[in-house]
Amino acid sequence: MAGPLTLAQIASRLGGRVVGDASIEIEQVGSLEHAGARQAAFLASARHKAKLSGTRAAAVVLAPEAEGLTALPRIVCERPYAYFARLSQLLNPSPVPEPGVHAAAHVARDARVADSARVEAGAVIAAGATLGERAWIGAGCYVGEGAAVGEDSRLHPRVVVYAGCRIGARAIVHSGAVIGADGFGMAAEEGRWIKVPQIGRVLVGDDVEIGANTTIDRGTVDDTVIEDGVKLDNQVQIGHNCRIGAHTAMAGCAGVAGSAHIGRRCTLGGAAVVLGHLTLCDDVHVSAATVITRSIRKPGTYTGLYPYDDHASWTRNAVLLRHLAALEERLGALEKRSPQRKKRNG
Amino acid sequence: MAGPLTLAQIASRLGGRVVGDASIEIEQVGSLEHAGARQAAFLASARHKAKLSGTRAAAVVLAPEAEGLTALPRIVCERPYAYFARLSQLLNPSPVPEPGVHAAAHVARDARVADSARVEAGAVIAAGATLGERAWIGAGCYVGEGAAVGEDSRLHPRVVVYAGCRIGARAIVHSGAVIGADGFGMAAEEGRWIKVPQIGRVLVGDDVEIGANTTIDRGTVDDTVIEDGVKLDNQVQIGHNCRIGAHTAMAGCAGVAGSAHIGRRCTLGGAAVVLGHLTLCDDVHVSAATVITRSIRKPGTYTGLYPYDDHASWTRNAVLLRHLAALEERLGALEKRSPQRKKRNG
Amino acid sequence: MAGPLTLAQIASRLGGRVVGDASIEIEQVGSLEHAGARQAAFLASARHKAKLSGTRAAAVVLAPEAEGLTALPRIVCERPYAYFARLSQLLNPSPVPEPGVHAAAHVARDARVADSARVEAGAVIAAGATLGERAWIGAGCYVGEGAAVGEDSRLHPRVVVYAGCRIGARAIVHSGAVIGADGFGMAAEEGRWIKVPQIGRVLVGDDVEIGANTTIDRGTVDDTVIEDGVKLDNQVQIGHNCRIGAHTAMAGCAGVAGSAHIGRRCTLGGAAVVLGHLTLCDDVHVSAATVITRSIRKPGTYTGLYPYDDHASWTRNAVLLRHLAALEERLGALEKRSPQRKKRNG
Repeated sequence: MAGPLTLAQIASRLGGRVVGDASIEIEQVGSLEHAGARQAAFLASARHKAKLSGTRAAAVVLAPEAEGLTALPRIVCERPYAYFARLSQLLNPSPVPEPGVHAAAHVARDARVADSARVEAGAVIAAGATLGERAWIGAGCYVGEGAAVGEDSRLHPRVVVYAGCRIGARAIVHSGAVIGADGFGMAAEEGRWIKVPQIGRVLVGDDVEIGANTTIDRGTVDDTVIEDGVKLDNQVQIGHNCRIGAHTAMAGCAGVAGSAHIGRRCTLGGAAVVLGHLTLCDDVHVSAATVITRSIRKPGTYTGLYPYDDHASWTRNAVLLRHLAALEERLGALEKRSPQRKKRNG
Repeated sequence: MAGPLTLAQIASRLGGRVVGDASIEIEQVGSLEHAGARQAAFLASARHKAKLSGTRAAAVVLAPEAEGLTALPRIVCERPYAYFARLSQLLNPSPVPEPGVHAAAHVARDARVADSARVEAGAVIAAGATLGERAWIGAGCYVGEGAAVGEDSRLHPRVVVYAGCRIGARAIVHSGAVIGADGFGMAAEEGRWIKVPQIGRVLVGDDVEIGANTTIDRGTVDDTVIEDGVKLDNQVQIGHNCRIGAHTAMAGCAGVAGSAHIGRRCTLGGAAVVLGHLTLCDDVHVSAATVITRSIRKPGTYTGLYPYDDHASWTRNAVLLRHLAALEERLGALEKRSPQRKKRNG
Repeated sequence: MAGPLTLAQIASRLGGRVVGDASIEIEQVGSLEHAGARQAAFLASARHKAKLSGTRAAAVVLAPEAEGLTALPRIVCERPYAYFARLSQLLNPSPVPEPGVHAAAHVARDARVADSARVEAGAVIAAGATLGERAWIGAGCYVGEGAAVGEDSRLHPRVVVYAGCRIGARAIVHSGAVIGADGFGMAAEEGRWIKVPQIGRVLVGDDVEIGANTTIDRGTVDDTVIEDGVKLDNQVQIGHNCRIGAHTAMAGCAGVAGSAHIGRRCTLGGAAVVLGHLTLCDDVHVSAATVITRSIRKPGTYTGLYPYDDHASWTRNAVLLRHLAALEERLGALEKRSPQRKKRNG
């Protein structure tokens, strides 16, 4: 832990305005519910103000409009969640790897491993692979032939990077992620499938985070590209030939089928799906569990999510769903013979 | 195998009433379709009675109302499936691990490993980690710094437990599961994402089963909690800060987004999703592929699943789905000018 | 690389008709967008003909009806994509493994490993396991007790095959796949779950491809069966006791619940789900993100996918979805009092 820091010290590093005792020392961040002495919590929005009353946090980070909601020492700032993120980073700095290749790691003779890099037990670094300065390869990882991991990137245990793939600087890749497996390229011929060799690579930019058990397939002939600053949660699947624009984020279990191109600063909610060969422009937000079936050219939020109900109500309504067209015809028939029929704007 | 056991011996251990020759020996369980001599099958419900006629099983476990459906030796009991489970456990006892740390495992000097524990080849037990009595750590597992695995718990090969996480007693964790990766905590700031360090842990209770490639994220500041007796199938995703109540079960590919609290004895069907920050009370059953978007305060079964159809019918109906509001307006307009308009209860 | 080959040489091996200079040498395949000199691209269908104008490919593979769309040297054939697959296979032959067991692999004394097989660092081959001729076991794989991997099959790094499971010849299994974990068999009893031991196996036929982090569960008592030629993309989940018919293909994140039987030559789109205990006949095609809830006895394409919309429109329409039954009643009431009411076919 890098603390403690006084509120004054925090504000001098991160900005914001201290209200109350600025000499209070903060050691760690916490939640409003469970933070204790020497811990700072944050109030995401005034909506959650009820949580403030019972908190035992030593200080609170909050927005100007919430400033008056507590008498606790506090830091007032525009974006409390982002501020909290930076404060937590300050108090919980990323560990710097102790350099060295473990005796039980297997590094090919011609792999280039920076002196400051760390390779843990059971990791395999194949021929021609490159590890940048302070790259940290966790236990049991596999970095394939000619693959590269950039400086200050960390692969948690059991990550696999297939041959030829490249991961940029400052990446965080969580356990079980698989970068560069073959895309699902199969040509049908007389009731059988012929494999299309997947000879492209996966190119991952800088400052990317990849969640546990997420998979990103290599390209068929061109490369699959993950641009800078992309954040992928766990169990995300990115098909071959995709391009994911910079600073796009995808929540858990999202899936992008092959050859889709997603713009910059997009978000995909959990379990959202984008079908293959589509293009999403910049700043598109796809709600959770929504399936995008056509390209989107206009920024905005898109949703397609079947509303749940108690089972009996759902059953009643779902049956009719399969007969909507018939229902519409009945309505049309009625309209036709209705005497006062007016033009409709439908 | 622990058998053979006669029907009489089985009933004396597990209860139930033997009908027919109680001296028949049973060596193994089987299905009605494929069981052979010396094997016992079960009839889940009278609905499947057709399968009884052809079976070559030596004995059948069934419910009182099905007792007369076969002339085979049988055990009559209230819950044939549960009985079958216990019978199979009797005939297929869990193997007890041969104690010892494999020469090719890597155990930190200050890790505490019970003498009766087993650590297989390629496994890494980091500094300060604890393995309880008869804990069984499969090949290539990773147990991080300060993490703990309770007594009689088994981690199948290639499981990852991140630093600080705790798994209780008698757990079964299948290959590829990742416990304690960072939650997806990202604060937006000027079109970029700032990582919120994830400093909470994952706490897993006793008697929990976790499926292959399932992921459970560590908490942001507080812990993610999986209570006793929870059963998670494969490829389930549990977000940071979740609490999953005791004896709740989730089928394959279910997902629970961050900070959701799920009650006790709930079930989630396959591919069901619970969005973030929601609360589900005890005894809620979510159907397969259903997305829960609001908190649920009343026990029961909830469903929201788009019914499939042949593609042409679906196309016809789905178009109208996007114009339901317009359709409802047309209906309202007709109602307004209908002479015999009555009050509706709709 | 196995090239270069002239167009004439290619056509003599793979068929097709050369139009233009047959002596042009091809070294590699490429996409129409990015192929350069000495590379051949293909035109999937005349719909994409716009891409032809700008291509710098040396040659193009296309269908007879597209023959006139370019002046480039070309190979005309019936199924350009399948042809392209074979051409790419010709130019990118699968590497043959260098035989041998790595010094840091762990092979049980009684495992049977063919002399031509390759076992990489950190892999564990348990007691009684069998590896066929030229089987290639990647770094850190685990092949359990009595399991078998057939000839010419390749397990990429970190694949787990549980005890007793069998993989046929010429399989490709990608990293993180888990074959043979316990099926999700739990019997409910007084608010708790009793585990049903999963004593069946997984039997995988020949020429099967299994994607990264895909999971296939072992059977409860009988076996889970994956027939010849099945192709599974990444993060697919196959429950216990399933049978997947020959040459069936499933795209990423598809899921098949326990005891479902799927016919031959079926396809499941990405994130499609088949519920448990269902039977799908041969030649059924399930669209992406569709949930199959009843057995299907007739070949064809089936879809059930909620159409997405901009968020505001979706909200408006989705509310009504939960009141479809009420809406239908209102319509029915109107019909009843409509004077010119006719019989409807609805």
